[in-house]
Amino acid sequence: MSTQMNTADVLDERFAPVAELMRSYAQEDPGYSGQLAIYRDGNLVLDMHVGNDCTAESLTGVFSCSKGAGALVMALLVQEGVLDLEAPVALYWPEFAAAGKENITVAQLLSHQGGLPGVEGGFTQEELIDSRLAAGIIAAAAPLWNSPGTHSYHALTMGVFMEELARRAALEPLQDIFERRIRAPHEIDFYLGLPEDQESRFRPVLTVQDAEPYPFVDPYSPLGLALNSTAGFDGPKGPGFEILDVPNVRSIREAGMAAIGGVANAHGLASLYAAATTGFVDRAGDEHAPFLDAATIATVSQDRVFGLDRATGTMGAFGVGFMKAHPNNAFGSSRAFGHDGANASLAFADPAYGLAFGYVPSRAEANGTGSRGGRLTVLARQVLLGG
Amino acid sequence: MSTQMNTADVLDERFAPVAELMRSYAQEDPGYSGQLAIYRDGNLVLDMHVGNDCTAESLTGVFSCSKGAGALVMALLVQEGVLDLEAPVALYWPEFAAAGKENITVAQLLSHQGGLPGVEGGFTQEELIDSRLAAGIIAAAAPLWNSPGTHSYHALTMGVFMEELARRAALEPLQDIFERRIRAPHEIDFYLGLPEDQESRFRPVLTVQDAEPYPFVDPYSPLGLALNSTAGFDGPKGPGFEILDVPNVRSIREAGMAAIGGVANAHGLASLYAAATTGFVDRAGDEHAPFLDAATIATVSQDRVFGLDRATGTMGAFGVGFMKAHPNNAFGSSRAFGHDGANASLAFADPAYGLAFGYVPSRAEANGTGSRGGRLTVLARQVLLGG
Amino acid sequence: MSTQMNTADVLDERFAPVAELMRSYAQEDPGYSGQLAIYRDGNLVLDMHVGNDCTAESLTGVFSCSKGAGALVMALLVQEGVLDLEAPVALYWPEFAAAGKENITVAQLLSHQGGLPGVEGGFTQEELIDSRLAAGIIAAAAPLWNSPGTHSYHALTMGVFMEELARRAALEPLQDIFERRIRAPHEIDFYLGLPEDQESRFRPVLTVQDAEPYPFVDPYSPLGLALNSTAGFDGPKGPGFEILDVPNVRSIREAGMAAIGGVANAHGLASLYAAATTGFVDRAGDEHAPFLDAATIATVSQDRVFGLDRATGTMGAFGVGFMKAHPNNAFGSSRAFGHDGANASLAFADPAYGLAFGYVPSRAEANGTGSRGGRLTVLARQVLLGG
Repeated sequence: MSTQMNTADVLDERFAPVAELMRSYAQEDPGYSGQLAIYRDGNLVLDMHVGNDCTAESLTGVFSCSKGAGALVMALLVQEGVLDLEAPVALYWPEFAAAGKENITVAQLLSHQGGLPGVEGGFTQEELIDSRLAAGIIAAAAPLWNSPGTHSYHALTMGVFMEELARRAALEPLQDIFERRIRAPHEIDFYLGLPEDQESRFRPVLTVQDAEPYPFVDPYSPLGLALNSTAGFDGPKGPGFEILDVPNVRSIREAGMAAIGGVANAHGLASLYAAATTGFVDRAGDEHAPFLDAATIATVSQDRVFGLDRATGTMGAFGVGFMKAHPNNAFGSSRAFGHDGANASLAFADPAYGLAFGYVPSRAEANGTGSRGGRLTVLARQVLLGG
Repeated sequence: MSTQMNTADVLDERFAPVAELMRSYAQEDPGYSGQLAIYRDGNLVLDMHVGNDCTAESLTGVFSCSKGAGALVMALLVQEGVLDLEAPVALYWPEFAAAGKENITVAQLLSHQGGLPGVEGGFTQEELIDSRLAAGIIAAAAPLWNSPGTHSYHALTMGVFMEELARRAALEPLQDIFERRIRAPHEIDFYLGLPEDQESRFRPVLTVQDAEPYPFVDPYSPLGLALNSTAGFDGPKGPGFEILDVPNVRSIREAGMAAIGGVANAHGLASLYAAATTGFVDRAGDEHAPFLDAATIATVSQDRVFGLDRATGTMGAFGVGFMKAHPNNAFGSSRAFGHDGANASLAFADPAYGLAFGYVPSRAEANGTGSRGGRLTVLARQVLLGG
Repeated sequence: MSTQMNTADVLDERFAPVAELMRSYAQEDPGYSGQLAIYRDGNLVLDMHVGNDCTAESLTGVFSCSKGAGALVMALLVQEGVLDLEAPVALYWPEFAAAGKENITVAQLLSHQGGLPGVEGGFTQEELIDSRLAAGIIAAAAPLWNSPGTHSYHALTMGVFMEELARRAALEPLQDIFERRIRAPHEIDFYLGLPEDQESRFRPVLTVQDAEPYPFVDPYSPLGLALNSTAGFDGPKGPGFEILDVPNVRSIREAGMAAIGGVANAHGLASLYAAATTGFVDRAGDEHAPFLDAATIATVSQDRVFGLDRATGTMGAFGVGFMKAHPNNAFGSSRAFGHDGANASLAFADPAYGLAFGYVPSRAEANGTGSRGGRLTVLARQVLLGG
């Protein structure tokens, strides 16, 4: 399959300029490798890889793209009436009704408005992997703010929220729901919990070399808490680029935490969002119906918060678990929803175009408007607009 | 009259430095032409034009300054109890109560908080001109966001909202109310619907030459939707500077849409706000009482939203239909209210100073703090402050 | 004592690098003088002064650090049940229930959300000193905005709010409560009302020389109103750096307005926050228990508002009367609370570190992230983090 893709990676000629842009990245930077896959209206229109550090089949860590997979599980539960977005979190998770959190709704929590980016002292790796432990700690915590509409990116705890809501509302681990309902039936190369027999395809995330030293981030600040700086990955000296090593640890890949534990390739990222929104035709020619209906897509992809992030002071917009496009990360239309990752991997659906998009660079790079991934999203839309 | 104004355009010597600044624009830029008119406490204190592309009498498109005229009609209806700002829009416009819009209030809708900047597929010119058609489409639409306090500039649909509210609450077209109650009795050179017999005074808007290419704006993004990019003026390839040609089309001028269809000169812009707030003495020496009372002015000019625009990520502040001054567009005091246009035309009242201000450049230019118009507003206040 | 401090100013060797940074400021800039004092877990760990314009004992104006002292009085009243943060202001101050202010809560008012930064015409010095007069004027005023969640720094009126709430809820002037309950029993060098017998220790605030001319600020804009530009300190020509001269006026120091009238040294600033949060050991070796309990500290230091300031367009975050750290003023952790002043004096507690911090430059300088004071706060945390 990988050989086939190398020679015929543009399956819809309109997307040839997008492939050309992708190739130019490797031509201009010998250190660059990456994967790109795009569906249009359920048909694979582009599936390619460039550079020496990946193949079409190779898998790597996709960091917070994992949150998109988790949010798709949440969306399934919303669609089936198992989870009510407007209900207080405490309806499902009674212990959450502590320290002033009684009225926080599911939608608010899943759109980064809960004010619970982390806890002082941090979570151990064990607590994050068995997130019932982390959830127990969070349930007792007071929110950082009492200011409606404020949000801040919950880099790790968002996964805990989604996992706990799955356990409480659906009585099943999120990873199991994802595997049983989403990944396996569609044979998607996106794993929340990478099986041992797929390990041979895993390639470690390459991190930025000669990176600028990170400015001091107070480990007890909202950002430091979100990065779990007082324990776990970064230790007590504040966060660094070490977070980029997270998926290179087998126990993390095995657990597949919904926050940042996912392993995938670009084809898997794109397939996931095609399966959710348009359905898709698989390589055997079989048709897969979309697993979300239009009303659910509209509900979970609607903006729930927009503004400056409390921790970073940068612009952000979120639906229910999903990142939304905005001027500083203009990956899609007003209907686009998905997530990017710390390494600049990017996965989303854009129903306004019938697109499902997956991008995975082998070496961590910048994301947002104007980045390599961002420029690919612009061109993918322009070719469809005829412009 | 125009001749008289050319020779005696400074009617209050305190404003001589403002006239001098206006003249300097033409001296420094041979391509510059523009009009400026200022009332203080109801007396015309400055009325001038510079450059070769306009006269004191000439009229041109004033784009979103039209929204200010529409908002003054709304204010009249509020003053008379015909329109309740705190009522849900659906009270007047029952079809609006669809797709989650049941509780949006008139004040929220008129302060750009409705989340309805446009619709996919866009509006045709016909639908915008006969805005009952556009209103029917909007009534069925879901808002882009479900996040209280978020706003985004509704470049075209704001006119539809105001026109539909006029029809529903006052049972009369907004343009007719404006003509009958505001323009005609005060002989104001600001037309929402330019009569054929005034066409000879119209000068086309001159657009920026050698403008930088516009960066890609997704036509389905909040900004693209606001600019009606998928239909109408800009076509499916995204917005461009073509919007500046809008008032150069006779059918637009004839319709005089409250969003962007107004035609005026600087004297008309200033007279409109003087008529609303201080009253004014006309050229025949007759006194006109203000058509808004102080309580109404306070109500409609109070801030209703402030923050980053969802579409552009830039700062914005709005009252009920009116732009408010803020650090990036500091045209007046906390009580100032009005609107600018895409060509940088600018019209507002500032009750803290007793000012009514109108500025119209012949060629589209930048607006905001530090712009030509903005600098004129600073100096007009400084001369009164004695500073 | 001052001599002792000169020779043994580092009382905990871990803080030696902080002392070194402070000394470097004077070495690099011969015009620099300043004081720095830090408590850790109630023990004085650093108390020093550098440069020729201050001693360890000298006192100077600390501007809005005064608001922190006022907010600590508010916190005491909250702790004792005298003041309910969630109650409408009008419960205590019935006249406040005018012009649309009926529902503004105490917490909203004390977190700069009231929309009452000033009044047109301004306050006289007499009205600010006897703030019952200013309070009477404010009670009748309409808020600048009707947009929940909007905030703007109330540079002068915040003191009036706190003083009036003390009078109404505790039936005692705020300054008397501060003296009786906080300053005197702990012998803190922070005066809201400097006694005549302490005047000999006062050194005038040195203002910036060759400062850039201030850009025009409309005296009737939110910022101009906040700076009382139409009367009082700055006069009708807009604000200037004259505000830095305020504490150099004896009548201001004598009144000790909670907005900007406080006089202190760095030891006093740090002692105040140590007394509030950790308690402290005084110079005689006696232990002082903290005057706030943990629950009260959590309540008053929790974020109540975050976002762009309506007046300046810059980022801000506030708890109940206290400044909170944020990306542009990252003085502490998410639990840190305190206030800085116009001269860049800085005082706060950071319960995440057990720190109480006071910094007073003799000559006004910049504040915020990266400033001299800000860099000291970073290093004080880094030495404790072992990093």
